[in-house]
Amino acid sequence: MIEPKADALLTDLYQLTMLQAYIEADQHETAVFELFMRKLPPARNFLVAAGLEQVLQFLENLRFQPDELEWLANCGRFKPKLLDYLQQFHFTGAVHAMPEGTVFFPDEPILRVTAPIAEAQLVESRIINLLHFQTLIASKAARSVLVAPGKTLVDFGMRRAHGAEAALLAARAAYLAGFSGTATVLAGALWNVPLYGTMAHSFIQLHRDESEAFEDFARANPGNVVLLLDTYDTEAAAEKVSRLAKRLKNDGINVLGVRLDSGDLGEHARRVRRILDTANLTDLTIFASGNLDEYSVAKLVASQAPFDGFGIGTRLDASADVPYLDCVYKIQEYAGRPLRKRSEGKATWPGRKQVFRSFDDDGRMGRDVVSLETEAEPGEPLLKLVMEHGRRIEPPVELDAARRVAAENLARLPASLRSLEPANAYDVKISPAIQELANAVDLATNHAERF
Amino acid sequence: MIEPKADALLTDLYQLTMLQAYIEADQHETAVFELFMRKLPPARNFLVAAGLEQVLQFLENLRFQPDELEWLANCGRFKPKLLDYLQQFHFTGAVHAMPEGTVFFPDEPILRVTAPIAEAQLVESRIINLLHFQTLIASKAARSVLVAPGKTLVDFGMRRAHGAEAALLAARAAYLAGFSGTATVLAGALWNVPLYGTMAHSFIQLHRDESEAFEDFARANPGNVVLLLDTYDTEAAAEKVSRLAKRLKNDGINVLGVRLDSGDLGEHARRVRRILDTANLTDLTIFASGNLDEYSVAKLVASQAPFDGFGIGTRLDASADVPYLDCVYKIQEYAGRPLRKRSEGKATWPGRKQVFRSFDDDGRMGRDVVSLETEAEPGEPLLKLVMEHGRRIEPPVELDAARRVAAENLARLPASLRSLEPANAYDVKISPAIQELANAVDLATNHAERF
Repeated sequence: MIEPKADALLTDLYQLTMLQAYIEADQHETAVFELFMRKLPPARNFLVAAGLEQVLQFLENLRFQPDELEWLANCGRFKPKLLDYLQQFHFTGAVHAMPEGTVFFPDEPILRVTAPIAEAQLVESRIINLLHFQTLIASKAARSVLVAPGKTLVDFGMRRAHGAEAALLAARAAYLAGFSGTATVLAGALWNVPLYGTMAHSFIQLHRDESEAFEDFARANPGNVVLLLDTYDTEAAAEKVSRLAKRLKNDGINVLGVRLDSGDLGEHARRVRRILDTANLTDLTIFASGNLDEYSVAKLVASQAPFDGFGIGTRLDASADVPYLDCVYKIQEYAGRPLRKRSEGKATWPGRKQVFRSFDDDGRMGRDVVSLETEAEPGEPLLKLVMEHGRRIEPPVELDAARRVAAENLARLPASLRSLEPANAYDVKISPAIQELANAVDLATNHAERF
Repeated sequence: MIEPKADALLTDLYQLTMLQAYIEADQHETAVFELFMRKLPPARNFLVAAGLEQVLQFLENLRFQPDELEWLANCGRFKPKLLDYLQQFHFTGAVHAMPEGTVFFPDEPILRVTAPIAEAQLVESRIINLLHFQTLIASKAARSVLVAPGKTLVDFGMRRAHGAEAALLAARAAYLAGFSGTATVLAGALWNVPLYGTMAHSFIQLHRDESEAFEDFARANPGNVVLLLDTYDTEAAAEKVSRLAKRLKNDGINVLGVRLDSGDLGEHARRVRRILDTANLTDLTIFASGNLDEYSVAKLVASQAPFDGFGIGTRLDASADVPYLDCVYKIQEYAGRPLRKRSEGKATWPGRKQVFRSFDDDGRMGRDVVSLETEAEPGEPLLKLVMEHGRRIEPPVELDAARRVAAENLARLPASLRSLEPANAYDVKISPAIQELANAVDLATNHAERF
């Protein structure tokens, strides 16, 4: 439904009307925009950067196609000079960014675009749209990863994700953050995200009996036998699986596990574990699903319910407790002149910035300093040049490599931030040079305000 | 990024493993599935059906492309018999549905699919994904429409919508529900949704002075002059606009309005209105934006703040207060045999259903009866046959026609349901025949459970 050729029009109208003003005035000087979060929602102690790969693809491929130019020409708002500009448009700028999987905090830019003003402005809407969503999901998924070490976590959320792209990118972002895989087939096909799946209640219901349903499924999918127990009576179904598993074993088919999807999951799991163990099926795994999120998973894990894994769906893919982040893309510099926004309650820091991260003796994140790009601070600089003259400077990062970055970052989180409970904010300092620059910009800005 | 050819793999893995079992067993009998909401979230008194048009497009166009079949063949899970089936797959079933824009309530099916089991099962994930999201957004947008009669309401949410498709479909669903338009250009290009847009703070900031920024924008976009006032000092900017508007008028350019995006919006609007009126600019409209939703819009309207319109963004497109609905697609019948789900807390009503709606003497919705399709109840039947043998029986409904259906439905809402506050539930009766059928199904199901 969303055709790639339509991407250029997936933008806010005001980007095009502003472009018209820039092009009419022959304004092509270099602008610098940075993307960052203004603040953390109360239910997040940190965020995980994700979505850069899709942003770079977007910037490399952004072109206006003939039918799009025709629509723009006919819509009555745009002049030939803008249309000529759009016809030859391609992105020629530079991008600095934190690698996907990097843990970050408010006021820290995770992406900087340096390009002629029209280019840097036009790409705003889609860049935010791509980075905001995957960062939202990776940040939520990481919380389940932290509370369920060693468990198999699977994204089950496609159906109630917000559209096709959300479903697909949620699968990617969750895997990046440390999930084991997804049920969404296309994410497996595009990025080799491991696929998981069982059967639906409808499959059991339309068979004349439950044991026959289990057996039909197992014989048709001999390498992938995970059976759903709660259509009628969970424990009775576990007994049926016990009998069936032995019979199938003789035919070389292994039942891998069972899934529970309703009722008191912890209690059912304990009973089912007992039934399976009694039948010497100690290898069979027990998998939970049904309105789960990091909070319910943490409770099940803490209660030592014998689950091997969890399918987390709607509440992950819709990021139900925090459905959006306060993510913005703001101008920092134009034609060499630093800028800041001063609107009430929405002020920003000016200039091209870098984030330096220092670690404690135990290797955990200690504090970050947001400095000007030109400053040298102790610690590791988190923003790296990834695109120049509109081209990547290195080949695309494999998703598994980004997943390793996330795992390393999560391993170095301060203990207090790992909790699902709100923690004291991580220490992020704004360098004195930025604060001085802000004061200088304010003095200069008073001129703009007067006229 | 999302290519249409990839749609067939945008599904849950278990759909394909279940299909493999059906195909191996040569099970092709007719299944009936219905899509409905199990319950309303506390912050919704009604829902507005939306997304049917995209579902019908999906069903008409669903095919497995050679590269998708190749991926499936190589992934190691699927046998030639399934692959042969998928290669020739197209949807041949029937669809009954409520027209887009229809108000509905829990337990009422808004869509029914009648098709050979493999077809009806395979399409589940994407049908839910499409209907759930647009219904979610239309239902939220309708609340703003109800609390702000006569105001211009515009979707501003693209950047923080959950991906490209969410941005696009949110613009569509909001317009369907009664919004005046959107800022998302592609929604204008695809469906003629009216486009609105102004300018960003960055545009003002990078000019040497604010008045010059206003004038540059106006001269470049003479038919579309809405100026953003809150970059520095809102009231000072209103004075500049007053002076500029008179000068531009001499050149035949009309300033249409101004936008406020921060601070105490109501208070700023009153002051700006006074400044504009004093300058005889009574026609200039004042538009608000900045973290708005139906709750803040209702407050601004109730306070009689002099706003002509509102741009509602993130909280609409992410449906922030209710980020998902309890939307399911459940089997109701297989091979002529009615079925119901009985899992703890997730029981469903069996059989092919119709919803009859009765109206009070004043034309308002009075009560609904969910009956079997074969029953005749008083009132208007809401589900209509829209697809047969995999083909629509009528041409696609224009979005403006669906928008009129929504307007008619909203006009007939009982007064109590129009409030943003939780109201007593609307009266939805389950017919005695369905209840009897459920009992009969339970008796028959005990057989399936025993084995």
